[in-house]
Amino acid sequence: MSSDRLIYLPLGGAGEIGMNAYVYGYGPQGKERLILVDLGVTFSDMETTPGVDLIFPDMTWLIDNKDRLEAIFITHGHEDHIGAIGQFWEKLGAPVYARAFTANLARHKMRDQGQPDEAIRTVSAWPEVTAAGPFNVGFLPISHSIPESAALVIDSPDGRVIHTGDFKLDETPIVGEAFDPDLWASVAKKGVKALVCDSTNVFSPHAGRSEATVGPEIEKLVAAAPQMVVATTFASNVARVKTLAEAGERAGRSICLMGRAMRRMVEAAIETGVLKDFPKVISPEDANNIPRENLMLLATGSQGERRAASAQLARGKHNGITLKEGDMFLFSSKTIPGNEKGVIRIINQFSEMGVDVVDDSSGLYHVSGHANRPDLERMHDIVNPQMVIPMHGEHRHLREHAKLAESKGRQSVVAVNGTMLDLSGNAPKVTEFVETGRTYLDGSVKIGALDGVVRDRIRMALNGHVIVNVILDEDDEPLGDPWVDLMGLPEQGSSFAPLVDVLEEDLSQFMGRAGQKTLADDDKLEEGLRRVARNSARDEIGKKPECTVIISRLS
Amino acid sequence: MSSDRLIYLPLGGAGEIGMNAYVYGYGPQGKERLILVDLGVTFSDMETTPGVDLIFPDMTWLIDNKDRLEAIFITHGHEDHIGAIGQFWEKLGAPVYARAFTANLARHKMRDQGQPDEAIRTVSAWPEVTAAGPFNVGFLPISHSIPESAALVIDSPDGRVIHTGDFKLDETPIVGEAFDPDLWASVAKKGVKALVCDSTNVFSPHAGRSEATVGPEIEKLVAAAPQMVVATTFASNVARVKTLAEAGERAGRSICLMGRAMRRMVEAAIETGVLKDFPKVISPEDANNIPRENLMLLATGSQGERRAASAQLARGKHNGITLKEGDMFLFSSKTIPGNEKGVIRIINQFSEMGVDVVDDSSGLYHVSGHANRPDLERMHDIVNPQMVIPMHGEHRHLREHAKLAESKGRQSVVAVNGTMLDLSGNAPKVTEFVETGRTYLDGSVKIGALDGVVRDRIRMALNGHVIVNVILDEDDEPLGDPWVDLMGLPEQGSSFAPLVDVLEEDLSQFMGRAGQKTLADDDKLEEGLRRVARNSARDEIGKKPECTVIISRLS
Repeated sequence: MSSDRLIYLPLGGAGEIGMNAYVYGYGPQGKERLILVDLGVTFSDMETTPGVDLIFPDMTWLIDNKDRLEAIFITHGHEDHIGAIGQFWEKLGAPVYARAFTANLARHKMRDQGQPDEAIRTVSAWPEVTAAGPFNVGFLPISHSIPESAALVIDSPDGRVIHTGDFKLDETPIVGEAFDPDLWASVAKKGVKALVCDSTNVFSPHAGRSEATVGPEIEKLVAAAPQMVVATTFASNVARVKTLAEAGERAGRSICLMGRAMRRMVEAAIETGVLKDFPKVISPEDANNIPRENLMLLATGSQGERRAASAQLARGKHNGITLKEGDMFLFSSKTIPGNEKGVIRIINQFSEMGVDVVDDSSGLYHVSGHANRPDLERMHDIVNPQMVIPMHGEHRHLREHAKLAESKGRQSVVAVNGTMLDLSGNAPKVTEFVETGRTYLDGSVKIGALDGVVRDRIRMALNGHVIVNVILDEDDEPLGDPWVDLMGLPEQGSSFAPLVDVLEEDLSQFMGRAGQKTLADDDKLEEGLRRVARNSARDEIGKKPECTVIISRLS
Repeated sequence: MSSDRLIYLPLGGAGEIGMNAYVYGYGPQGKERLILVDLGVTFSDMETTPGVDLIFPDMTWLIDNKDRLEAIFITHGHEDHIGAIGQFWEKLGAPVYARAFTANLARHKMRDQGQPDEAIRTVSAWPEVTAAGPFNVGFLPISHSIPESAALVIDSPDGRVIHTGDFKLDETPIVGEAFDPDLWASVAKKGVKALVCDSTNVFSPHAGRSEATVGPEIEKLVAAAPQMVVATTFASNVARVKTLAEAGERAGRSICLMGRAMRRMVEAAIETGVLKDFPKVISPEDANNIPRENLMLLATGSQGERRAASAQLARGKHNGITLKEGDMFLFSSKTIPGNEKGVIRIINQFSEMGVDVVDDSSGLYHVSGHANRPDLERMHDIVNPQMVIPMHGEHRHLREHAKLAESKGRQSVVAVNGTMLDLSGNAPKVTEFVETGRTYLDGSVKIGALDGVVRDRIRMALNGHVIVNVILDEDDEPLGDPWVDLMGLPEQGSSFAPLVDVLEEDLSQFMGRAGQKTLADDDKLEEGLRRVARNSARDEIGKKPECTVIISRLS
């Protein structure tokens, strides 16, 4: 028994915000029985991952050790915690446990990927626990910006670990369970070995505000609006959607949900009993027949996503509805870093229509779903663990959170993805590094982040692409002149002749000069043609394009 | 005389922040004599302009009317006001007027492009005026985040226009002239027809703070730092650079400037007498020999630019200097929307090194160079113009600024790039729309934003690129099988065979089925091959790549 150990291994979410995936294990070294907490995605961007549809944690290590995996637990239904479940379940093959609302969403994820949705098992909140090998795991309710978030109480022969998931300390969360400090204190009473804790808002110096504080402000705003009101927020923030809808209803407005995710989330919340008393909603078709001063739309796309309802409304029309001078558009949301340009684009489009945009710069119409610095301190104090392991954050968040814990005399360590910690002793100990990274979903194919596929696409985007084509006969003699095609390059450069002509002329000269040895050798010929094409382009247009050389030999 | 009119035409900077270029004209309709105010650039991004080096306003209209252009006036030396002068001067051919510091920078821009730097003429501040056709133009000092900013007092037979340039109302600006309300009131006294006014910070509700407020805070911070201190800010913010350097000096630290722009700006400011008493600086080589607690670096790259000194320090080493655990890095700057990810990347890299990063989230270490809403109101009141024309802003800023002016009973209008206003009457009147847009500097070539070059690059980045190659003989019979090359695409998809093989097989089958009519017709054959390649890829990898078809015919 003394050779058994308790380990923690983040495969995603530690050193970044997004694609959470945390492994816990207990047993003899290298033979620990494992559980996985969360299996999320992160989103691509044009700068680093153009054309990529979704980003997953690299699950290779866990797939290689799938025979040791007892179960998967999902803390809550946000995409960065649940989004990859349908994509990896088949390769992991363990039962998936979640509370009702989360399980409802997870089953959709499974069906979307043609996976058996009965793999998702609904469990009740603490004190119910699920046995998984050496672990007993309970779902301890905690407030966040989605219903039924849970921390996990993970009991092992080596003691109790609490994995917070994402959380805030909200005692009036509108929808779902309030944070219950007494319940938490009772769970922590017998001693907690490690608190593995959300770090997102560690740089926010003031205590977080309750979801209940935004309702009155939103109500005032909507009541004063003279024409149509459109509001956007994260669809999964069911409490906010409810607050917005009720503000509309009280102002005598009919409510219309715009965007698939918005309808889907409200549906899931009603199906699972999380949401009660939601105002009656009307269809977009019916909305067209209602005077605009009596209408309120709740739209997806708070981050400026091009295909979401908000962006479509900003571009002109969505489901037959067009905004007009005097309408109001409310961002009841904050802009996630990196999405600023997309959001600003929408605001300017609305400005051109004469629509008044209200955003969160006043701080009145949105609150965060994560615990701020004083809330983290309060959480540390309530749980009073031996050690605090910061998770769910970029390196700067993890480091700051570890410093915060250490400043109060608790053991802590920064463990980024791939860092295996041994939690068996009195302090966390780095015991191993596991290779991790990112897997891209590109169309329908999973590719490794380092496969070079996306790197080549970025290079084409930066440099353009030249295709050089030559044909040689049986005797390695060129048949005609080289032929050039361009993609993403200017038609002409410094000599004011077509760039294609300039390149073909230089390539012709090269072919004329090339000796028999070069002409007979595909590698040499390709290298020579590429060099000439790229240098010729550099002289002509000041940049060296990517170059594909196609050599055809008649035989 | 009654047929003469006074016009205003923004070609850049109105409807966006960046690439300022404003035309004023006076004379008979269509024959107005013109002046240009500012000629700036804006910066590319990976999302909309991958591979583009710089973005200019489309100057076609002005180039077509260059015989009517009397002069160019530059308000101040920021890139978005001065950056395109070397690129367009040859095509415009008018004298360029600027104050000494701005002129110094402008001459460098000219020399960089092989243009005659004597085209740049140094003028003194108001009350000196420069005659330019029907106009007399004076440079009225105003505070901003670069030395020697000036508003322009543009006198025409139709009255006085004041073009603010970028400004804030700073009565203690550290470097350069303070805002002088009495001087401004005296200039406005006889009546101002139009105030053409910076709109950048119209959404900032509180009065702006003076540059002088950051010094004491920076000084405290630097004095308390135990190890090396590195600070970054915009190099052109000479006042801030001075404040930072002096804070370092007072803390007993040697100052080292890192990055070409940082050295260049300090040089220009000293050369032109704008900057006096700057602390002695040491070279990076000497900095290597100084104990780190006695060193302060001032580095370029406050926006996370990959090639700037800050990003290089974050990646490891720059000029032989490496940061270490316990060093401090200060962003004495704000992050411009769109640059968040680059800045956050640096912060996390420093975090991994154990470097403590201080940013502006506290509001202590940076102040904006633009007038906030109450400052704009004060400016309107001091100048008391007949009309306020908002400029230098996105649509949302211009609209808000116009509403602000109108709320105080002044005439206003939103005029975005290409909107020609007639200012002759009592209210601004939209009189014409001129085609405008953006010109990209791509390598050494200027291309139009709508030429499709960048669009093709974006498509390759999103979708990858397939090249299909077929050869046909004199009788239009295929010689061998089609040949496929891939760039930026996964090696295999759903069938687990190489994607190249799958495409070549499908293309071969198409060639086998193709009739003589198709084989003889390049357009039909190309269309067919492209369709097969893209559909085959879609089935295999779930995305339709860009496709280039090369048909070679032996003849």
